[in-house]
Formats: sequence, C-alpha cells, structure tokens
Amino acid sequence: MPKNLTKRAEDYSKWYNEIVLRAGLAENSGVRGMMVIKPYGFAIWEKIQAQLDKMFKETGHQNAYFPLLIPKSYFAKEAQHVEGFAKEAAVVTHYRLRTTPDGKGIEVDPDAKLEEELIIRPTSETIIWDTYRRWIQSYRDLPLLINQWANVMRWEMRTRLFLRTAEFLWQEGHTAHETKEEAIEEAEKILDIYAEFARDYMAMPVIKGVKTPSERFAGAEETYTIEALMQDGKALQSGTSHFLGQNFAKAFDVKYLSRQGKLEYVWATSWGVSTRLMGALIMTHSDDYGLVLPPKLAPIQVVVIPIFRKKEQLELIDKKVKELTDALKQKGISVKYDNSDNYKPGWKFNEYELKGVPVRIAIGPRDLENNTAEVARRDTLTKEIVSMDNLPAYVENLLSEIQDNLYNRALKYRDAHITKADTFDEFKEILENKGGFVLAHWDGTPETEEKIKELTKATIRCIPLDMDTTEEGVDPLSGKPSKRRVLYAKAY
Amino acid sequence: MPKNLTKRAEDYSKWYNEIVLRAGLAENSGVRGMMVIKPYGFAIWEKIQAQLDKMFKETGHQNAYFPLLIPKSYFAKEAQHVEGFAKEAAVVTHYRLRTTPDGKGIEVDPDAKLEEELIIRPTSETIIWDTYRRWIQSYRDLPLLINQWANVMRWEMRTRLFLRTAEFLWQEGHTAHETKEEAIEEAEKILDIYAEFARDYMAMPVIKGVKTPSERFAGAEETYTIEALMQDGKALQSGTSHFLGQNFAKAFDVKYLSRQGKLEYVWATSWGVSTRLMGALIMTHSDDYGLVLPPKLAPIQVVVIPIFRKKEQLELIDKKVKELTDALKQKGISVKYDNSDNYKPGWKFNEYELKGVPVRIAIGPRDLENNTAEVARRDTLTKEIVSMDNLPAYVENLLSEIQDNLYNRALKYRDAHITKADTFDEFKEILENKGGFVLAHWDGTPETEEKIKELTKATIRCIPLDMDTTEEGVDPLSGKPSKRRVLYAKAY
Repeated sequence: MPKNLTKRAEDYSKWYNEIVLRAGLAENSGVRGMMVIKPYGFAIWEKIQAQLDKMFKETGHQNAYFPLLIPKSYFAKEAQHVEGFAKEAAVVTHYRLRTTPDGKGIEVDPDAKLEEELIIRPTSETIIWDTYRRWIQSYRDLPLLINQWANVMRWEMRTRLFLRTAEFLWQEGHTAHETKEEAIEEAEKILDIYAEFARDYMAMPVIKGVKTPSERFAGAEETYTIEALMQDGKALQSGTSHFLGQNFAKAFDVKYLSRQGKLEYVWATSWGVSTRLMGALIMTHSDDYGLVLPPKLAPIQVVVIPIFRKKEQLELIDKKVKELTDALKQKGISVKYDNSDNYKPGWKFNEYELKGVPVRIAIGPRDLENNTAEVARRDTLTKEIVSMDNLPAYVENLLSEIQDNLYNRALKYRDAHITKADTFDEFKEILENKGGFVLAHWDGTPETEEKIKELTKATIRCIPLDMDTTEEGVDPLSGKPSKRRVLYAKAY
Repeated sequence: MPKNLTKRAEDYSKWYNEIVLRAGLAENSGVRGMMVIKPYGFAIWEKIQAQLDKMFKETGHQNAYFPLLIPKSYFAKEAQHVEGFAKEAAVVTHYRLRTTPDGKGIEVDPDAKLEEELIIRPTSETIIWDTYRRWIQSYRDLPLLINQWANVMRWEMRTRLFLRTAEFLWQEGHTAHETKEEAIEEAEKILDIYAEFARDYMAMPVIKGVKTPSERFAGAEETYTIEALMQDGKALQSGTSHFLGQNFAKAFDVKYLSRQGKLEYVWATSWGVSTRLMGALIMTHSDDYGLVLPPKLAPIQVVVIPIFRKKEQLELIDKKVKELTDALKQKGISVKYDNSDNYKPGWKFNEYELKGVPVRIAIGPRDLENNTAEVARRDTLTKEIVSMDNLPAYVENLLSEIQDNLYNRALKYRDAHITKADTFDEFKEILENKGGFVLAHWDGTPETEEKIKELTKATIRCIPLDMDTTEEGVDPLSGKPSKRRVLYAKAY
C-alpha cells in the first residue's frame, strides 16, 4: 500500500485530493483556482476526447472554433443567461501593459482601455448564436450540428481539482434545427451518447433524467442530465444537454426561410461534458491503494516489471519481455516495460497501483525457468501465475473482464444506494447514514425544493427518464399531493 | 470558374481573403481581431494537429495543459520576455459583472477587482517554468518533454484571417534539459520535424535557418525558423523553435541536482506552430479557381458527382457509386458523394474546386453504358476518362501524384525565387520586380538590418542552415565586409 495515503473511510475529500496529486493527474497552479493538468491526467482526458469526438462525428457533428472573448453586450441579450453567468465572469478591460514610471515594473496601461469590456467565455451560446445569424438563411442550412473543444472560465470561489475549477476544458455542442421536435430529439440523442460513453468507456453507470426548472441551464427550456453516484454517497452531474427552445434565436435574431416559405425562428440545443468527468472517473472506481482506471481509458493498460538481482538475469528477462510486449502491442494493447534500475520492484508495484494501471505483469528468474509470469489485476488486487504461451490472449481477455467488473461493481453500489423515502424523517436518515439517491415524492414547487436544500443540503438531481416513478403520493416535507417521485441527493 | 472571385494577379490580398471566406475556412467574428474557424477550415486544422501530435509523441513528448491566465508579476520576471509581449497583452482586471443601478443593463462590478491583474497567455513560458520549479529536482526528472495545444492571445492592431489574429490556436512545446548541448539538439530536432511536416503533409518547401539577434523570440538565445515562400513573393515564417538557454530557469529558479551532485540551472527550449499554417497552406497552392489542398490534409479527398436528368438515371448511378465509394473508403480515402438535387452539376464542380477537393469524379448515363467515369484533378485542372474497373487504384495513385506535384511545383517556384544580389540597386530591383528571397551579404550589425527594413520593407528571414552561404563579400548597403550571405525577403 502506498505510504501515507489517506483512506477513503477516514477523509474522502482528502483522499480524493491525494489521489489526484500522487497519481500525477493534476495540481493547483500559482493562479487562484486554475489547475495544471499533468501529462498522465491529460493522457486520460485525450482518450475521453478521442472517443467522444468519434461519437459526435458518427452522428453528423462537425467541429469548429469560436472566439474566447465575448463582448459584454452579447451576454445582456438573453436575460436568464446573463443572470446565470454574470457573477462568475472574468472580464478583460485593457489590452496593453506598460513600464511603470520608475522603470522597474509593469502596470496596466490606462490608455489601452477597451471601449466595451470582453468576457472570457463561460459558455459560448451568445457568440455562437451571433455567428449563426450569418450562417442560417434557409431550411437548407439546417440542421446545423457544431461542436467545439475549448477552455472556459467561471470564477469559482471554492475550487477543487477537476470538480470545480475557474478554468476548465470541455466540449460544447451547439445545434440549430427547423422544428421543436427535431431539437428535442437532438438533445435526447446527445444524452444517450453521454450515457453510453459513461457506461462503455468510463464503466460508470448513470441515471438519465431532466432537471427541475430551478436547476436548468440559464436560458434553457429543458435541461437533460446524466447523474452518477460517487463512493461517498454524493451524486455528480456528469453531463448536460439542453433544449434551448427559440430563446437564443430570438435574442440574436436568427431566422430561416421555412419549407413553407415563411421566416421562422430557429430551434436550438446545447450540450457539454468537461474535465469534471475526470473527477467522476476517479471517485467511481479508485480505492485506498490509489487510482483505478477502466482499461478503455487507461494510458498504460499493462505494465511489465522485471524481478532480478543480477544484470544477466535482466538481460534474459528483457529478451522474453520483448516478445511479450510485441504480441500485446499487436493486439492494440498499450504496454509499458519498466526496467529502470533506480527503484526496487516493490516500489514500482506501489507506484503503478497508485497510477491505476489495470494489469501488472511481473517476471523473475523462476518465471523464466517455468515459462510463466505473475499477473496482477488492479481492480481486485488479486494475482495469478500464467503460462507465457497464452499470456497475450489471457491479458486481452483480462482487460475486458476488468472493464466489465468495474462497471458491474459500480452499478451494484449505485443500485444499492437508491432508497425510497416516504416521510421526511426517513429522508433525512437516509441522507445522513446511508447516502446515495433518495427516491421521494415532490409536490412540484420550487419552494419545497429550496426548503429541502436548506434543511438537508440535498437537491433534486433529476426527474428520472429510465425508471417509471409515476405514482400518487405525498411530498414528505410539505405534505402536498405528488404525482411522481424524483431523485434527491447531496451532490458535488 | 467561380463567379466574382478576384484573380491573384489583380489583388493578391483580396484574393486571399475571398478564398478564406468562400471556401468556408474562417470568417471575422463580431469581436475585433478574433476569427471564427468554420467546420471546413477546422477539419484541415484537425488534420494538421493529428499529424504533428503523432510526430511529437513518437519523439517522446507528452501533452499537458497549463492555465490560460498568467499573473502580471510572472511576466516581469524575464526582462526581455515582458518587453516582447507587454504591448499586446489582454488584461483581466475583474471577476464579476453586476446589474446596472437602473436595472436595465450589466456592468463590471467595481468590488470585484483582482488584487493582481491576470494576462491571457500570449505564450506560456512563464506559467510553465513556474510549474517546472515544482516538477524538477534531479537529473532523473530530465529531460522533461511537454507540449500543449492551446489558444493564445496577442492584441494585434491590424489583423488578417489565419495570418494575424488576436486569438489564435497553436501548439507550444516546452522542454527542460540537463545540458546546453541536449537543449540545442532538441530545438534542432523540432525544427526538423516542422520542416518534414511542411514538406510531406503541406507539400510546402521551407528553408531552415536561424534568426538574427534582433528577430529572436523574446527571451531566447537562439531562434530557429522555417521560412516558406508565398506565391506573391513574400516569405512567411511558418514555425519557430527556440533555444532558451538558462534564462527562464534563472527567472523562475529552476535547478536540478546533477549527476555530479551539484545544483545547476536547467536548460530550456520552446517551439510552436499555429493556425498561421493555414494561411501558409492557402498561399502556397491555391489558384484563381479557389483553394487547392494537398491530399494528405484535405478533409474530402475525392468528391463524386452524378450527372443525370431523370430519377431512374440517378438510381442507377447511386448504385454504381456505392461500390466505388466503398472501395475507396477501404483504401482509407475520404470520399463524399454529392447527389443533392438542389444544385446543378456545374455549380457543384465550381463549389468543390473552390473548396480545393483534390479529385473530382463525375458519372453520367453514358459513363454507365461505357463503364467509365470522368476524373478531374484539382492541381492541374485536367480531366481523363477512366475505366470503372481500376478506378479505386487509379484514384489512390492519383492522390499521391497530386501530393508530389504540388510539392514539386512549389519547390520549383521557390527555387526560382532565391536571387543573389551584390549591390543595393540589385537588391531593391529584385524585391520590387521579382520578389522572393534575396541572398545578400550582411555586415552582421542590427543597424544595417534596421536600415534595410526601413528602406525596402525586407527583413532578414534567416541565416540559412541548409545552404552553405559562407563566402567573403561586402554588405550591399553599408559596404562593410561580410563573411556570409543571408536570406532577405518581404514577409507576412
């Protein structure tokens, strides 16, 4: 076990932070609230990006790039939108520095003040819809299916690596459609892609649902969400897809000539996932030994470590391992052979456990004699002695087994943490002792929603789409009648 | 020929701008100096990125991500660096907006003023070296070979799409080394990668060289460059690689414990290419009919257009084309079948010529009868009738031929535009009438360099590395002795 790593049961939040730092994923920079994504963390993000990008393109989306800076007046055009983002806007006011009068330092040049302040994009609806006005004239220009990979900025006061940072990386899709139905279909299609990606690549089960009006994206008519459950019983919103109605089309005057020859406002969606997914990935699978990565997103899927005393032994092992790594690479498996001599095998074992490498293969002199290797899997921490002859096939199969096992384990945990509550005492008791999602009735009012948040810190994560929660009942707090249950949880 | 497209000979600059707009590559946004990269342009950039990223990774580099915003004080730490970038810095001074007192608009909240202003990165040496101080302790941590794909901001007063924009996309490599020799070797290795990429993918010949001291990157001890020649006789700096010495290590106090057990400052390089390459690509190959793309960077390599009058004809063509496109895709060729019925074939021909698609295949009823197709190549604008039987192999071969032809054509033009000048009259005459590079003696002083720039607008593009230009001579302007010729040109 890695030295001094905090255990989850002791302090989950501290454990999380240590995993991020010690596995080499990210760290705080010298700039408040902004992180440095380190190479190992970024390699995971690249795998997330590559797969999502592929899925977007397969469904007809194209990438583009829009300006980082947005004029203040653009924000003001959609009332709810500016309301939602004004409080965390990073504002550019000047475009030049100059030497201080004493010649020793630099200062902002007061003569280089912008006529209109520019906001670093917290999201790009406004600048994009300002552009779409030029791109869309007729129904022949629709649907317009665009995605952007970008950095965005939301000035957060309390930040946490990956989960809440002032700057983060994300993708933001922005689509334009002829009809309301088509736009809703798009928002739902993307939600399905997000859920499929979470399940098949992150090995993370999610619940698909819609947000209550008070939790909607600023400017949306409907916000779809995927909600995941972390090991400490808190939910994490992992991706959202918004049906924006005609709000941005109206704010930016984007009309098209319809098939019937009439000028109509365009229907819109927007949707995004961010580097927050890295936090979700960590908190879904990792353990007291460090990071646990699903094979499909692991930058290194297999590490091979030689066990040797003498140089001649290492030479023999090197030779054997060359054959093995060649065979693994041929199967598309990413493998690292760590035969560095500055650390002992025990140190390396800990290190790669900490980094979440799914499979570890150790080969020593006795293995050479017996034509075997020791294969350890990160998810269960179990080991087996395997013949070298069928090792590549064994490893290939094992990686797929680990991927499945991680998903099933997370699913089992998640399913065991969806609990019905009918009274407010039950509601509170579940949140305090068991954690997870509480499936409770809601009277449909924002007042009750707000009151419950005040009293318990739990919010309505979503009105689930996959489960049928329609039934007559009574709101546990207000006692008013309710037509369906919703999912509450404390959340990140 | 596309309607109303300005000819190169009429107004090169106007032609360039029209190509960018009409081929759907990019456009100006509502934000001064910032462009929108449109899907077709971005698809080319993605191909550039993918190939360079592969080449960086194959040479041991890893990607990471550093903050967008850099505290003003970081800039002040390296004197030359701040001098070089202060005048174009976009400055964030506040982190919140608020509603105006009349409740009708929004304004910057004066209570949310930052204690220290933040600069949007114009380049990331300072924030990265501030980070490297934490990452580097011993020679075991070296070399550190990191690359970042990012947006950067340099407040330009006169902007041009792709060539000079306030915000642009780029990659910036930042490496740290034990020795001076190793750092120089890295800077040169990257220059080779850039030149190889330009040649093999962009079909663009470049001259490798070093910059004169006055043209060096702010903070560099040596700046390596690749210089390309555009069709109007102006040079375009297409990528630079800097040997930074120990300047940033000293400014940010980055020391390592050497193999000899001594604390030493680290040696550094940085290097980058940007969306400027898009401009270089356009101006190297395109013609009066529109964009011309080398097949290796073309989002669509082959377009197939049906020629038909009746629906039944189209159905037969559709069927035939399906076989063809399947066969092409199997060879890894990206192909688009445009059987839309809203435009006539002639319009489509023009459109795909404008967009620079390397190969166009047209199939009509007579082709069906004869089992042929008409194949047109974009580079030469010539056509041939080819049997359907060996069409996929023919197209594959043709794409490779077009790639080579574009390179050879550009090389021939470039080589014909490197002219020796021995007197200042010759020097001016070449610049005025012929354009291109002027190979002239230089007395080695910044004064002469500056004077020539004033008089002719030409700058020393580089002291070439590939050609031996060492010989005794006389500076054409100052008359002082010179030991070698250098390459002058007017430049973008």
